[in-house]
Amino acid sequence: MEYIFELPFKVRDYECDIQGIVNNAVYQNYLEHTRHEFLEHVGLNFAKMHDEGIDAVVIRVEIDYKSPLKSGDRFVCKVNVAREGNLKFVFLQDIYRLPDMKLIVKGKVTAVTINAQTGRPVAPRELVDVFDQYVG
Amino acid sequence: MEYIFELPFKVRDYECDIQGIVNNAVYQNYLEHTRHEFLEHVGLNFAKMHDEGIDAVVIRVEIDYKSPLKSGDRFVCKVNVAREGNLKFVFLQDIYRLPDMKLIVKGKVTAVTINAQTGRPVAPRELVDVFDQYVG
Amino acid sequence: MEYIFELPFKVRDYECDIQGIVNNAVYQNYLEHTRHEFLEHVGLNFAKMHDEGIDAVVIRVEIDYKSPLKSGDRFVCKVNVAREGNLKFVFLQDIYRLPDMKLIVKGKVTAVTINAQTGRPVAPRELVDVFDQYVG
Amino acid sequence: MEYIFELPFKVRDYECDIQGIVNNAVYQNYLEHTRHEFLEHVGLNFAKMHDEGIDAVVIRVEIDYKSPLKSGDRFVCKVNVAREGNLKFVFLQDIYRLPDMKLIVKGKVTAVTINAQTGRPVAPRELVDVFDQYVG
Repeated sequence: MEYIFELPFKVRDYECDIQGIVNNAVYQNYLEHTRHEFLEHVGLNFAKMHDEGIDAVVIRVEIDYKSPLKSGDRFVCKVNVAREGNLKFVFLQDIYRLPDMKLIVKGKVTAVTINAQTGRPVAPRELVDVFDQYVG
Repeated sequence: MEYIFELPFKVRDYECDIQGIVNNAVYQNYLEHTRHEFLEHVGLNFAKMHDEGIDAVVIRVEIDYKSPLKSGDRFVCKVNVAREGNLKFVFLQDIYRLPDMKLIVKGKVTAVTINAQTGRPVAPRELVDVFDQYVG
Repeated sequence: MEYIFELPFKVRDYECDIQGIVNNAVYQNYLEHTRHEFLEHVGLNFAKMHDEGIDAVVIRVEIDYKSPLKSGDRFVCKVNVAREGNLKFVFLQDIYRLPDMKLIVKGKVTAVTINAQTGRPVAPRELVDVFDQYVG
Repeated sequence: MEYIFELPFKVRDYECDIQGIVNNAVYQNYLEHTRHEFLEHVGLNFAKMHDEGIDAVVIRVEIDYKSPLKSGDRFVCKVNVAREGNLKFVFLQDIYRLPDMKLIVKGKVTAVTINAQTGRPVAPRELVDVFDQYVG
């Protein structure tokens, strides 16, 4: 798979649990932070969308844990995007250990954007344009 | 679905994020804590299994986010179990808000047990027995 | 010391770190949750205070770590209150392991309330009354 | 104050709470990660010390919260060290927002090293040498 964005990290000791490896839930923190940095990178203004009454909501997360990260490990979180139907925006996010690029986690995060007042899904032009640019 | 174990919780404010709702990653904390309490409840001794060289590892998590929890909400995490093939142990874990039992999250967590030395999957009698008892 | 409120907890495994004990930062989570439950218990309405333009802000935390909590431990967080000058509201919060009541943590959390617009400290009647009742 | 080590960070959205600012407990995560990176930087080998039966333990934390960090903020955590008596190792850790260097947090973290078997404080040569070098 080709990726369109990536963010490097280093494991922090407080993210590790009794087994001495990064706790499973912490990978969702990594994925979320990477998505937000990606969206900032492509100029998506969620504050502005929020002011216009549109909120982004994660509706499904799938994570395959391939190998654990340990204290001191460096890694990179890579992102690609896809669409499902007209209303679902999908982030494909994989984590690789550095420098050997061993696959750690494969993630798929599905979001929708809703009209904050009606709760109904909408597909804001701003977001569609970004996804169309990369989905090709 | 019938459930075989449940654990009540109350949202803690530090678990909520900028949107004023529980952060997506925190639900994995709730699911993990509930699994561990369930396993303790049925007498599964992971420390003992670990001493015998067997480790439990989560290999896949799927979470559907149906509705958010907010500051002050009470909720319950319910558990059922299933098996896939001989080697995968599946936890079906759903979260409902109290007292109205609104569905918040549907989770499916797949674990395997491995021989800590060889890294090869094993199906320890102790765990199989517990699952067989409930899977029927 | 006498206490005016207490809240029971059980350690969750994801709160423990590589050393197999609860991470130092997590005790601040326990202290915060207990403060918020105490304030709810005495009927302090922070949402209402916030709507009236008054925000509570922690300005100093002191924690003495006496003994660690481990996976599976039950404990209780106890609260007393004090005032320093006219404008500082102090929470004295100690954590004891259950059932042997071994002292785990001694905490002192100092907060002020500020006018959200001017940023200047204020002493809202509502909060003063609660503290006066207990400080005696 | 002069500092002997510093580490840059960026706030991650999941670290912010309902008020839209970094939660008070999260600053302890920042301080801990910076200490561990500092200790790695000066070549202190805690794994080796642990193998020799010596464990480092935080016994007291003091944090003054001067101003909050918000979503998107960049900041730097700076470190100095001091000793108290023969047995206490003190980390003075201050956080400044970037790029305006506004003071965010002043922290003081006191640790001791203990013989893991007897629980008695010890002052390992390795650690004393590092501190002496900087304390002057």
